[in-house]
Amino acid sequence: MNTFGRKFRVSIFGESHGELIGVVLDGVPAGLELAQEDFTKDILRRKSGAKGTTPRIEADKPRIVSGVYEGHTTGAPLTIVFENTNTKSKDYALFADMPRPGHADLTAALKWDDCQDPRGGGHFSGRLTLPVVAAGVVAKKILEDATILDDTPVNAVEARIVELAGISLLGVTDENQTQCSQSTIPAAWQQAIDQAIQEGDSLGAVVECVVPSIDPGYGEPFWDSVESLIAHAVFSIPGVRGIEFGDGFRAAAMKGSEHNDPIGADGRPTRNGAGGVNGGITNGAPLTFRVAFKPTSSIRKPQQTFNFAKGVTDTLEVPGRHDVCFALRAPVVVEAMTAIVLADLVLLSDR
Amino acid sequence: MNTFGRKFRVSIFGESHGELIGVVLDGVPAGLELAQEDFTKDILRRKSGAKGTTPRIEADKPRIVSGVYEGHTTGAPLTIVFENTNTKSKDYALFADMPRPGHADLTAALKWDDCQDPRGGGHFSGRLTLPVVAAGVVAKKILEDATILDDTPVNAVEARIVELAGISLLGVTDENQTQCSQSTIPAAWQQAIDQAIQEGDSLGAVVECVVPSIDPGYGEPFWDSVESLIAHAVFSIPGVRGIEFGDGFRAAAMKGSEHNDPIGADGRPTRNGAGGVNGGITNGAPLTFRVAFKPTSSIRKPQQTFNFAKGVTDTLEVPGRHDVCFALRAPVVVEAMTAIVLADLVLLSDR
Amino acid sequence: MNTFGRKFRVSIFGESHGELIGVVLDGVPAGLELAQEDFTKDILRRKSGAKGTTPRIEADKPRIVSGVYEGHTTGAPLTIVFENTNTKSKDYALFADMPRPGHADLTAALKWDDCQDPRGGGHFSGRLTLPVVAAGVVAKKILEDATILDDTPVNAVEARIVELAGISLLGVTDENQTQCSQSTIPAAWQQAIDQAIQEGDSLGAVVECVVPSIDPGYGEPFWDSVESLIAHAVFSIPGVRGIEFGDGFRAAAMKGSEHNDPIGADGRPTRNGAGGVNGGITNGAPLTFRVAFKPTSSIRKPQQTFNFAKGVTDTLEVPGRHDVCFALRAPVVVEAMTAIVLADLVLLSDR
Amino acid sequence: MNTFGRKFRVSIFGESHGELIGVVLDGVPAGLELAQEDFTKDILRRKSGAKGTTPRIEADKPRIVSGVYEGHTTGAPLTIVFENTNTKSKDYALFADMPRPGHADLTAALKWDDCQDPRGGGHFSGRLTLPVVAAGVVAKKILEDATILDDTPVNAVEARIVELAGISLLGVTDENQTQCSQSTIPAAWQQAIDQAIQEGDSLGAVVECVVPSIDPGYGEPFWDSVESLIAHAVFSIPGVRGIEFGDGFRAAAMKGSEHNDPIGADGRPTRNGAGGVNGGITNGAPLTFRVAFKPTSSIRKPQQTFNFAKGVTDTLEVPGRHDVCFALRAPVVVEAMTAIVLADLVLLSDR
Repeated sequence: MNTFGRKFRVSIFGESHGELIGVVLDGVPAGLELAQEDFTKDILRRKSGAKGTTPRIEADKPRIVSGVYEGHTTGAPLTIVFENTNTKSKDYALFADMPRPGHADLTAALKWDDCQDPRGGGHFSGRLTLPVVAAGVVAKKILEDATILDDTPVNAVEARIVELAGISLLGVTDENQTQCSQSTIPAAWQQAIDQAIQEGDSLGAVVECVVPSIDPGYGEPFWDSVESLIAHAVFSIPGVRGIEFGDGFRAAAMKGSEHNDPIGADGRPTRNGAGGVNGGITNGAPLTFRVAFKPTSSIRKPQQTFNFAKGVTDTLEVPGRHDVCFALRAPVVVEAMTAIVLADLVLLSDR
Repeated sequence: MNTFGRKFRVSIFGESHGELIGVVLDGVPAGLELAQEDFTKDILRRKSGAKGTTPRIEADKPRIVSGVYEGHTTGAPLTIVFENTNTKSKDYALFADMPRPGHADLTAALKWDDCQDPRGGGHFSGRLTLPVVAAGVVAKKILEDATILDDTPVNAVEARIVELAGISLLGVTDENQTQCSQSTIPAAWQQAIDQAIQEGDSLGAVVECVVPSIDPGYGEPFWDSVESLIAHAVFSIPGVRGIEFGDGFRAAAMKGSEHNDPIGADGRPTRNGAGGVNGGITNGAPLTFRVAFKPTSSIRKPQQTFNFAKGVTDTLEVPGRHDVCFALRAPVVVEAMTAIVLADLVLLSDR
Repeated sequence: MNTFGRKFRVSIFGESHGELIGVVLDGVPAGLELAQEDFTKDILRRKSGAKGTTPRIEADKPRIVSGVYEGHTTGAPLTIVFENTNTKSKDYALFADMPRPGHADLTAALKWDDCQDPRGGGHFSGRLTLPVVAAGVVAKKILEDATILDDTPVNAVEARIVELAGISLLGVTDENQTQCSQSTIPAAWQQAIDQAIQEGDSLGAVVECVVPSIDPGYGEPFWDSVESLIAHAVFSIPGVRGIEFGDGFRAAAMKGSEHNDPIGADGRPTRNGAGGVNGGITNGAPLTFRVAFKPTSSIRKPQQTFNFAKGVTDTLEVPGRHDVCFALRAPVVVEAMTAIVLADLVLLSDR
Repeated sequence: MNTFGRKFRVSIFGESHGELIGVVLDGVPAGLELAQEDFTKDILRRKSGAKGTTPRIEADKPRIVSGVYEGHTTGAPLTIVFENTNTKSKDYALFADMPRPGHADLTAALKWDDCQDPRGGGHFSGRLTLPVVAAGVVAKKILEDATILDDTPVNAVEARIVELAGISLLGVTDENQTQCSQSTIPAAWQQAIDQAIQEGDSLGAVVECVVPSIDPGYGEPFWDSVESLIAHAVFSIPGVRGIEFGDGFRAAAMKGSEHNDPIGADGRPTRNGAGGVNGGITNGAPLTFRVAFKPTSSIRKPQQTFNFAKGVTDTLEVPGRHDVCFALRAPVVVEAMTAIVLADLVLLSDR
């Protein structure tokens, strides 16, 4: 199913090297102000260009082709498309015979009987996170609007990298700094990136996402717990290997007396081991979760694969332009997915 | 939304101390043999009774009230109900004023304006995992049937505890043993359980689930990756804090050359760091994931909560019958959720 | 798919002669007062007993087994079950070999490989409209509640028979009478019924449904027009052959200058040829549509069918207890379906 | 909800005078051959140009921007867009103050707080049936492919006008002729059209749709009967007032002995009063239904409306380019909707 959401519904389409990629948003309330400029900031955060990211540069200019009239949303389906211009499809001919380890080359071929568009990973490409980010911008508008209308404290969704190459952010920088933008990468991380570039290898990272201020009451006991919905959305980002809320996997080694969040003088938890969710429903504490991203699959370093043309195992050095650590571009995608889930819950809510 | 699935659809209903709990299964193929006895094994695995589990004993006898005729499924909605008999509702009056830390007492009240059924946790109760297990039994039948009809190797779903109270299974037992049933709990775990009982505290655990033999090609690139669907289902089990596939969170600290699974002589991966999924789609390797369960929220040990009647913080010692480590009963629930997801994917598949 | 609705979701289960039939309602707001007595009136309107309806009498006593606590809805799934007691299954053995013309005997067998429950029509039975009526009662409560909370004029759904055996109501009774309950059947209709009973034949009817007072703005331009949703729900009532809104089929023979509703001094239409809907969206005029019900399929009169056991055409006189005109019991079912659709739209609406 | 279907899913977007209109198709099987030329025939059948249709001429050239690679479908979402070029938006400024009788001007404004795109009817425009026709072309491919693969007789969907301006086709032409294309309009219809043009008025029509050869077993008893699904899709075509299957509304005046279809020597019905459906499920006879289209709402003839700017009733003569009988272009749209429903049922089916 290519659509996510019940009332705010997001449908993604396109391939990495196809004519257009885009997103259709259904259920966007009428009357939200929306202009092309609103997308700039988040699209730039996802953009390549920094050291450790792919040299492929796209204009990534969003065209709003339906659902907006005279600067505001109309209530009709809102469609945003992006053109693919900077494509070098010849790089990819090789992988039909020699699937890249870690990629979807093989599974796509098996699923779709070799009919998939192989250029740039086709519909599996990380490029498809661009329309996701665009959807996230609209979702964030819906969340802001909910705040204004209902005077409720639903606030910004904030994600950042907290671990890279196994090096925790806390060990390498002081906490104050990390609250601001991550434009400056800690030196220890930069060093790991430089080394990986040199080795033709790649790196993973952990992204933490927080919604500092969210109303209680969102989510369902079965099946649509807040964790279920967020995990569903987040695991559709290419390269995610795990997700945990609050104390996460550490909770499994804690005692109840340690993990349970005591309830304080205002009827709210005094710590946040639950990550802001009890019984699948937001409890008013910050919604907090962490996402594990694998290292980029495409590496220059030689790897073993199977050569289907020759019928033997073979060695592959993946050519082309790739991120050393694509997770550097992932925080804004995680934010988008979170905003998409919350916008749907806000619109579905009676409040 | 109280329903999960697209073609094999599962709807749960009921409250811990209500008249009936149950499940309606839609999309069950006609002609599957199904009898009450088929549920016995999995229901027993979920059942309380062992040391460390709640002393509340229920008959847990499934009544198939629709969708089965003369021993086989009919194709019409299949409904299974269970009666609640051994209920002691007076235990729960207290928690309206003094919500239990870690529980949904507060969030349910906030979501449903104090209208929720508070007895035994109502619809939030772990008791609702009983109809989930029943749904899992039917889902497993669908998976078996798929195997027989198509001669494909979709096999059993197998979950077990691999860590309890922070103690890994591998350190305390030899691997051969753990392949069989977990009827005998390792001594180190039993010791931790005994101590927690004595302290009036509780314990968490990590459950690992494996589908050793599964066809490639299940799942979608967006939004319904296999990981998305399984995470969605698994996070609706009460008490789950995290999920990871294959190398999971460890992948974030690995290099691409370490984490990528080389492709071997048969065109299949030679290790399984991806947990059997590439690009959201099964690759033919065993589907493998781990789930973190928090310690039981209800503990005898005094905890701080807010007394809404008195308007002050207060100390609560949760009375009643509770599991010290409810995760001991969780593996079969994780299996059920996994089977539910896979049965839907198998039925949706063209193959 | 056995479920209807997006936010107010209705799932039906059961067979005519099975153990239980019932309905699971998801998305019912918390805090609605609901008691067993609330169902009595509508269930009685659907009940058999009058001349021309089946002699099978069931207690039809609704048991609310989840989702209600201390007299109000909880917000959790609301389940209502009915027991089947007065079943005479031996009547139905015959039809496996000799399918009844007009019935689903053949299509069910073809669809479900002869695995269907044949007793009393199984899941295809008109008896399944009983849980639909129960769902309708809850839906009507939601509509009433919307009225009270928002001070909007969403009012009762009212359906009645306007034609029976080809005889229009307007020709045989004065309009004032028909506004009240249809407890007294016009003499011309009664005469047609008596004659059909004598001939062992059956009769059809047309039901008109009106929502006299409904807010403008419900429905969507694509795909969920109000007409689409109501038609979807109404065509799942067994025996429906057609539906038309406002001028209906007559509109196809009208000119635009005749069919277009002029807009009057209050900005509302001065006639209602559109049946209260423009562009798929309610316009504030009464929502009005008519539903054609076929004559009862089961008749005593001999009919030609195919005898699959003997491999030849054969003559069938359907034995058992049947309505001469089941449409006499249909108005409350049409009301229920309409209320189900509108309750969903009201809950989905932002207002 | 802007999406229809469960496995073959159709999402429409765009406005009459917006930048692009289009459709995203999800669940299209991989490997179907698909080229731009495949759309030509059906798009031409929908096109304006003939007498009685709007003089607005659009290129209506489909651009397949995703989901097709080297001439075949890939399995990924398939997106088709059309550019709007021949737009004369100034015609529509008037209607914000003076809503056109029969149009969605008022309901759109009420639903979307005056934020809708008013140009050319915006998202409510009949122009949106163009992407529906494109979706229908792909759906027909899926039906053809099902036929070839399974050797089943699912064949073409065929719709035509059977009544125009109240004049039945059977009275004005011989049956053989009508089996072929409707390129030549019967003289009596043409006369009615000419007269309506002269009077500045408009005409309605009835479209009949037949699927001559379809497998038994499609559809569900609740809620997704074949009639429910087709009616849902068909009522989302602008201007539909009614739908009836088989004997339709006439069935309500028939006796059971007349309406029931006798079962013949091959176990199939010997007449088709049921329109090919029993109990919501196809029975193997031709699927047959009729759709009532209202006369075009936009007429030159003066009509009464409310002038919201002046606060008084006023007289409107709708300017601009309009069909006298838009139903002349509707048969291919009805076919598309039918094919969309059937393609979904075929893909969902196990067979």
